[in-house]
Amino acid sequence: MDSLRSRLEHSVTRNALRSYLAEFLSTFFFVFAAVGSSMSSKKLMGNAASEPSGLVGTAIATAFSLAVAVYVSSSVSGGHVNPAVTFGMAIGGHVSISVAFFCWISQILGSVMACLLLKVTTVGQHVPMQGMIPDEMTGFGASILEGMMTFALVYTFYAAADPRRGPMTVIGPLAIGFIAGANVLASGPFTGGSMNPAYSFGAALIGGSFKNQAVYWVGPLVGAAVAALLYDNVVFPQGSDSLRSIGDGIGA
Amino acid sequence: MDSLRSRLEHSVTRNALRSYLAEFLSTFFFVFAAVGSSMSSKKLMGNAASEPSGLVGTAIATAFSLAVAVYVSSSVSGGHVNPAVTFGMAIGGHVSISVAFFCWISQILGSVMACLLLKVTTVGQHVPMQGMIPDEMTGFGASILEGMMTFALVYTFYAAADPRRGPMTVIGPLAIGFIAGANVLASGPFTGGSMNPAYSFGAALIGGSFKNQAVYWVGPLVGAAVAALLYDNVVFPQGSDSLRSIGDGIGA
Amino acid sequence: MDSLRSRLEHSVTRNALRSYLAEFLSTFFFVFAAVGSSMSSKKLMGNAASEPSGLVGTAIATAFSLAVAVYVSSSVSGGHVNPAVTFGMAIGGHVSISVAFFCWISQILGSVMACLLLKVTTVGQHVPMQGMIPDEMTGFGASILEGMMTFALVYTFYAAADPRRGPMTVIGPLAIGFIAGANVLASGPFTGGSMNPAYSFGAALIGGSFKNQAVYWVGPLVGAAVAALLYDNVVFPQGSDSLRSIGDGIGA
Amino acid sequence: MDSLRSRLEHSVTRNALRSYLAEFLSTFFFVFAAVGSSMSSKKLMGNAASEPSGLVGTAIATAFSLAVAVYVSSSVSGGHVNPAVTFGMAIGGHVSISVAFFCWISQILGSVMACLLLKVTTVGQHVPMQGMIPDEMTGFGASILEGMMTFALVYTFYAAADPRRGPMTVIGPLAIGFIAGANVLASGPFTGGSMNPAYSFGAALIGGSFKNQAVYWVGPLVGAAVAALLYDNVVFPQGSDSLRSIGDGIGA
Repeated sequence: MDSLRSRLEHSVTRNALRSYLAEFLSTFFFVFAAVGSSMSSKKLMGNAASEPSGLVGTAIATAFSLAVAVYVSSSVSGGHVNPAVTFGMAIGGHVSISVAFFCWISQILGSVMACLLLKVTTVGQHVPMQGMIPDEMTGFGASILEGMMTFALVYTFYAAADPRRGPMTVIGPLAIGFIAGANVLASGPFTGGSMNPAYSFGAALIGGSFKNQAVYWVGPLVGAAVAALLYDNVVFPQGSDSLRSIGDGIGA
Repeated sequence: MDSLRSRLEHSVTRNALRSYLAEFLSTFFFVFAAVGSSMSSKKLMGNAASEPSGLVGTAIATAFSLAVAVYVSSSVSGGHVNPAVTFGMAIGGHVSISVAFFCWISQILGSVMACLLLKVTTVGQHVPMQGMIPDEMTGFGASILEGMMTFALVYTFYAAADPRRGPMTVIGPLAIGFIAGANVLASGPFTGGSMNPAYSFGAALIGGSFKNQAVYWVGPLVGAAVAALLYDNVVFPQGSDSLRSIGDGIGA
Repeated sequence: MDSLRSRLEHSVTRNALRSYLAEFLSTFFFVFAAVGSSMSSKKLMGNAASEPSGLVGTAIATAFSLAVAVYVSSSVSGGHVNPAVTFGMAIGGHVSISVAFFCWISQILGSVMACLLLKVTTVGQHVPMQGMIPDEMTGFGASILEGMMTFALVYTFYAAADPRRGPMTVIGPLAIGFIAGANVLASGPFTGGSMNPAYSFGAALIGGSFKNQAVYWVGPLVGAAVAALLYDNVVFPQGSDSLRSIGDGIGA
Repeated sequence: MDSLRSRLEHSVTRNALRSYLAEFLSTFFFVFAAVGSSMSSKKLMGNAASEPSGLVGTAIATAFSLAVAVYVSSSVSGGHVNPAVTFGMAIGGHVSISVAFFCWISQILGSVMACLLLKVTTVGQHVPMQGMIPDEMTGFGASILEGMMTFALVYTFYAAADPRRGPMTVIGPLAIGFIAGANVLASGPFTGGSMNPAYSFGAALIGGSFKNQAVYWVGPLVGAAVAALLYDNVVFPQGSDSLRSIGDGIGA
């Protein structure tokens, strides 16, 4: 009981509350741009499936808004903006479980509010879900795809957050946004390229269908855990003496 | 009277005049690219509403030109390039009211001149306004949308301008441009994604219609004020000891 | 005579020769991507004028390749990659006339070689010129447009090259590329958005028509000169004590 | 024999093994996005050749994912992500031959696995090859084109990896991604813009055709070697005293 109380107290300090607010706002900014850009394409084209410039728009909106969402919250909450990233940080022992829990709530609330705002203000536009996986694909294949892309995202996050990398971390938020944007382009017509359970949950709740929702939780959470363990323990373990610069000789 | 005179003197020093010139030029650069890219799309397509690559072009032009406009003026005037940003800085007490006033004039003049130059040199092209909100939307909904996006922009501006963030501020101008570009993609066919009263005013004046103009003033100014108050007082108050790096544990 | 000889000797030192090579290579990289992306769009579409995604491609290629071209040559030759920029630097007294002359030759050679390589390897593709200004526009209007955009480019170059701006200069090459890309989007169907006499000359020579060539020399050179004089003498004079950070109060 | 054993021992240290893993992962991330974005465009359009927004998508995916792939591996393996870059570094004496060999294997494995994952999860989608060079072009011309673009890429890599450039190297990974993206736009319908033998090999193996494969090995390797020799020996030799900042006078 003491332990539970102390954990809860630890997770509701003033700084923690500011962090949850920062995560709420950043997830709101990101989901607003990502979902809004899909709705814009649909509004302009009627049928978004006929040519790829709608996908290009969604990818750019994802890349730019995620980079900014991470950037603005990084000095308050660490800039997760994604339950899968928070999960990866918890797996690596960088965030406590109780804090991670409140963080998830904030991210999910931010996503739901962004979708709701879009639905209400645009009056009658449909909030697109990401569950429209092509018939020939399996849910398992879709989970693998989302899991692999989230692996890349969380691995990038770990690299960007690694203080040993020094000035390179300055462009970390851009790297995080860019890998998400590239993966949206790679997976758009297959799984939609979410890599973010909060994003998928908000769109599903306001869009009114939870079809294939499991794909957007299982894949990303597993991918995030693998990335966290691999980065911390294998690729760049503590005590490693081989920090090098871009272009340095390999293994030299 | 003394107070008024001293305020005026304070706002017409040599440095202040250089700042107004910098704001004029930067707003000119930004509005030129944003309005020009809309005109280019219309020229190429005839009917811009049929597919989204025109919107992608406008979003990229907005993101790139705003990033540069902030970048080049940041070391002279602080890089506002937007009356809503100036208003947000005034609300937060970072700019005096009389200086903000002259700053608004400079920004509006820059926008008007950019639209005028485009209209005159392209001979017969129509300067597009942002007032063509879809029939099903209300003016109130449109104001909410523009206000929310301006909130995100001014919040990002505050983060980019925060000296406590250290080297992260180096990519601040990119972040400011990117959030604007992402929001253009999210709101293009709904409100046009202005987030900038000077931009909307210039396009309306030269385009010849002030329809829905209030949407582009009320929403952005309210959004800017909320962002300013929230950032300074809640998310990142002075004296806060929790500056952290990207990826640091939340509330730890 | 002594003066002429000394000038020539000064402009053919080992370092100067390395600079000319760097300018040749960087201009080659930039023009290759800019002209090549136009040719790609034409190859894919047949008629490039029917929708704007070709223009988006050219703008991105311009932004990315110019940023890189400036980046790689900046620590050798200063990263001009453009006769108008060299002219602007000469006007400001930062480059001697004889060095500027050899620099122009290098840039023009780089552009011509890039166009030639594209024409030879793609066999039968037409190298697009930028002289197809719409009928309703005047050559004078086109010069104004190109001049204004080059003004923005050279002004950005001056800001990026200003050592007083400290760490901000790190993203300078990106800013230079981004303003060029934004301006291509703004002016594509009107003047093509060259802002670079070497680029226009190379495309015209290999494309086989010098129609409207004067537009791409007069406008950019005048715009560059105005930007140089304005930046050095008015906006940010030597001895100015008002270097400030992004978001600092205006004139405070 | 001793020499061979010592070389092998040198290339299988713990740090070297971590480097190979980093190269495997980064090449996987890059090829996944580049090949996946082509497959997405084909899925959306049926016939990718009819308009350029598919090419824009592939170029952005290439630019963003390559920038991130270099970024995340730079502090472990140096961030090659490309056999041609490794070859260029070996030519310049920055990487030993035995290490380069294992590095190639890692990169090729990463590319093959990325293509395989895409083929398996998307069920029935065709993995696009880059060997569909237009009829009018020769294999020699295609090699020249790929070689020239790889020259630009490796030259940029050398500049980004040059410690004498100081803080400029912070944006190095972006520059490397951006030049690749620009070149994809310039060469898409001609050679596909690979600049990376591992990428082409993986796509060919899983796609089931090695047509024109030689083009994607000979051109890039020759281009990389020329870039390496030119940068180290001519443009920016060791002992050169002319490091300068962006905008500094040429040869002054």
